[in-house]
Amino acid sequence: MARKIHPVILCGGSGTRLWPLSRKSFPKQFALTRGGVSLFQSTVQRLTGAGMARPLAVTASEFRFMVAEQMRGTGDILIEPEGRNTAPAIAAAALYLEERASGALMLIAPSDHEIADGEGFMEAVRAAIPAADAGQIVTFGIKPDRAETGYGWLEVDPLAADAGPRTLRCFIEKPTAEAAEAMLASGGYLWNAGIFLATTDAVIEAFERYAPDILAQARVALQDARHDLEFLRLAKGPWARMPDISVDYAVMEKAENLVVMPYRGAWSDLGNWDAVWRSGGAGTVTEGPVTALDCAGSLLRAEVPGQELVGIGLEDMVVVAMPDAVLVAPRARAQEVKAAVEALKAKGAAQAEEAARDYRPWGWGERLATGGRFQVKRIVVKPGGALSLQSHHHRAEHWIVVEGTARVQIGDQVKLVSENESVYIPLGAMHRLENPGKMPLTLIEVQTGSYLGEDDITRYEDIYAREPGE
Amino acid sequence: MARKIHPVILCGGSGTRLWPLSRKSFPKQFALTRGGVSLFQSTVQRLTGAGMARPLAVTASEFRFMVAEQMRGTGDILIEPEGRNTAPAIAAAALYLEERASGALMLIAPSDHEIADGEGFMEAVRAAIPAADAGQIVTFGIKPDRAETGYGWLEVDPLAADAGPRTLRCFIEKPTAEAAEAMLASGGYLWNAGIFLATTDAVIEAFERYAPDILAQARVALQDARHDLEFLRLAKGPWARMPDISVDYAVMEKAENLVVMPYRGAWSDLGNWDAVWRSGGAGTVTEGPVTALDCAGSLLRAEVPGQELVGIGLEDMVVVAMPDAVLVAPRARAQEVKAAVEALKAKGAAQAEEAARDYRPWGWGERLATGGRFQVKRIVVKPGGALSLQSHHHRAEHWIVVEGTARVQIGDQVKLVSENESVYIPLGAMHRLENPGKMPLTLIEVQTGSYLGEDDITRYEDIYAREPGE
Repeated sequence: MARKIHPVILCGGSGTRLWPLSRKSFPKQFALTRGGVSLFQSTVQRLTGAGMARPLAVTASEFRFMVAEQMRGTGDILIEPEGRNTAPAIAAAALYLEERASGALMLIAPSDHEIADGEGFMEAVRAAIPAADAGQIVTFGIKPDRAETGYGWLEVDPLAADAGPRTLRCFIEKPTAEAAEAMLASGGYLWNAGIFLATTDAVIEAFERYAPDILAQARVALQDARHDLEFLRLAKGPWARMPDISVDYAVMEKAENLVVMPYRGAWSDLGNWDAVWRSGGAGTVTEGPVTALDCAGSLLRAEVPGQELVGIGLEDMVVVAMPDAVLVAPRARAQEVKAAVEALKAKGAAQAEEAARDYRPWGWGERLATGGRFQVKRIVVKPGGALSLQSHHHRAEHWIVVEGTARVQIGDQVKLVSENESVYIPLGAMHRLENPGKMPLTLIEVQTGSYLGEDDITRYEDIYAREPGE
Repeated sequence: MARKIHPVILCGGSGTRLWPLSRKSFPKQFALTRGGVSLFQSTVQRLTGAGMARPLAVTASEFRFMVAEQMRGTGDILIEPEGRNTAPAIAAAALYLEERASGALMLIAPSDHEIADGEGFMEAVRAAIPAADAGQIVTFGIKPDRAETGYGWLEVDPLAADAGPRTLRCFIEKPTAEAAEAMLASGGYLWNAGIFLATTDAVIEAFERYAPDILAQARVALQDARHDLEFLRLAKGPWARMPDISVDYAVMEKAENLVVMPYRGAWSDLGNWDAVWRSGGAGTVTEGPVTALDCAGSLLRAEVPGQELVGIGLEDMVVVAMPDAVLVAPRARAQEVKAAVEALKAKGAAQAEEAARDYRPWGWGERLATGGRFQVKRIVVKPGGALSLQSHHHRAEHWIVVEGTARVQIGDQVKLVSENESVYIPLGAMHRLENPGKMPLTLIEVQTGSYLGEDDITRYEDIYAREPGE
């Protein structure tokens, strides 16, 4: 029986290229869903099953509860104190696995790419096991179908046997249009998908040779790591001394034992709205309540229930409507959303980085309306979820339970509040909200007061051990 | 002292060309605002002041409370039982004025056009009084600044003196682009603005001669009219026998005593989004929370508080975001919104005809969120406003007052509910909500139940004398 493969899923990144769907506080791997399944979840699903060991997710502190919820206890979670690109994260993951399963095969994968044929991809992975077992680092190369200038390319030995990994000649950074055309025509080039299969030994050895400082700091970060609930937090001190560098640049481009396993199936990095449009089948791609009249080459995504998106005569446009922001741009300029996010940041607009829906370990909250001295929110608490025991200096709250059952503590009193019942939390009162039931609890919260900021909160107890301000 | 002018303001129309801002239930003259003032209001303001008599508004039953509120008792309101275009409405208005001020000067004006320099326009009106007093019907002709194919044109005598009305040679229906170019170049043509100054005698005489049936039915409709609160409802029977016809077609194009008073100032019929863009100064025209990066020739209107509209690289586009619909189209295709509205109607989407904000005589309501068995609304009751005494078979309601004070009757009990207080209306309970205060009352209503349609209402009393289903 073949050895198990240990998936290492990198999910700490947070880009703005899919804004307004993806935000710093709620990035693409969690925000982009298809049929209710996020990219992160479908990555976990793809890397789960026969022949696969328990996955290891490496993420940022602010995403830990999302990762935990979406993995539902089926994996380990390593927390990077700060984002440092892929090299430090992979070094720490290799050392973590080495401790627990010396010499294990690790499959390092981003969590924000799309691979339609997961089973076909896993076949390519399995076909690469002998090479990895032989000490090579296998990277997966996607067969290109267009002269894409946004990706890195890999030049491979065209004479190699078709079934197995090929010798890598060199890495090509994002090419010019001309160079990309030439590479596409030649057939000897593949796209670099940033997915690697290798033994922990091979990875650690490569770091030892080409990035020994990173490996050394990662070792300390892991030695001094701290358990926090189900998470393992890498130590801040050594992490702060890490360079911000990709594994390609720090290690892989220099490694002599790198080989490329071709993968012929569909793959997308969903790196901008143009890529999302393409992965949706090109043509007129719609999602949500959309009416598209005589449109072509356009992506229309309506993510606000009850807000119909109507496009007339659109050609090669992208329109994305979220509760707190609508983006409209020619598809060819979709990558400029970065500039828009910067402009919003300069304006002080919360939409630049924060999502309309505020995800918390207990569930989520969403603002429905705001007035001078009031605010209305929808709050959804998952089964077993509990908000911290808290109080507010400047606001009172009315809660009306509309779905499920709440256990509410106010002062020393605890009571159950069921559907169609309401409860009042006076200003200053210590209170806690929990969902003791088996189905989600939805309540409408009406806040009234002179100051309604999220920071008017005093926490007394918290089952999620959150830090102040979190 | 010159005789007073009686303004007749036509405000019963309801087009879809400015959808999604303008809806059948809330048309352009009320929906399009600048600085909080609607087109209807600014028409009333323009036609109010020295030399002007009390205005007469002619509108549809469904808009009567909007008109009453926006005129605030400063005018009379005549209600057309059904929309029949302008000829029947003008005939009824002429007879109405003739009864009350025989031989009065009447100024007939649409309520959905924009005239930036109201004072300048009124000067042109005053300069036309001698001609009207002499028995002529004066129509106002706008000096064209482009070869517009969407308007009707007037050919006038180019040799006439510049200061007064000119002889009309003929009406030209919406011309071809070529014809429009030729007319613009010639200088002898003006746009037909559909505004008329004449004595009631002259108007009645013209109808007598060219549309005697309309005049006869209008006479009966007025004789059998019924007072309803502050409104005068024209009788349905004779109105149903009216043809659906414009005053131009029925009367004015045939009248021999028609003269044209030129008006050189800016005017727009705001007939589609392209016209709104133009009247906004062309270039990049924005309204509301908009971030426009490198845009040109585009209209970006964001009408949802908290939903930022971001446009990147837009050229000659129109984007209009409302709470329940977003429209995106090239400006040149803005007139195709009609087809979009038809498509939505075919889908059964409420957005086709109904506005997100539901205006009622007592104020307005707006849906904030909807779930399986609940619905959240914001309800604003104006000072003195009162909802009907009512009950529901399928829902209970929680009301939380967030601004102002409510007087609430539940069964036989009446109580005051002030800011930050809540009240519960059990399923089946007879109840009434009033605003007894001097400032608007805002409350958040949370409905729970198995059926949440507006038609689950039994009315027992209504100070607005509304009919069932209204």
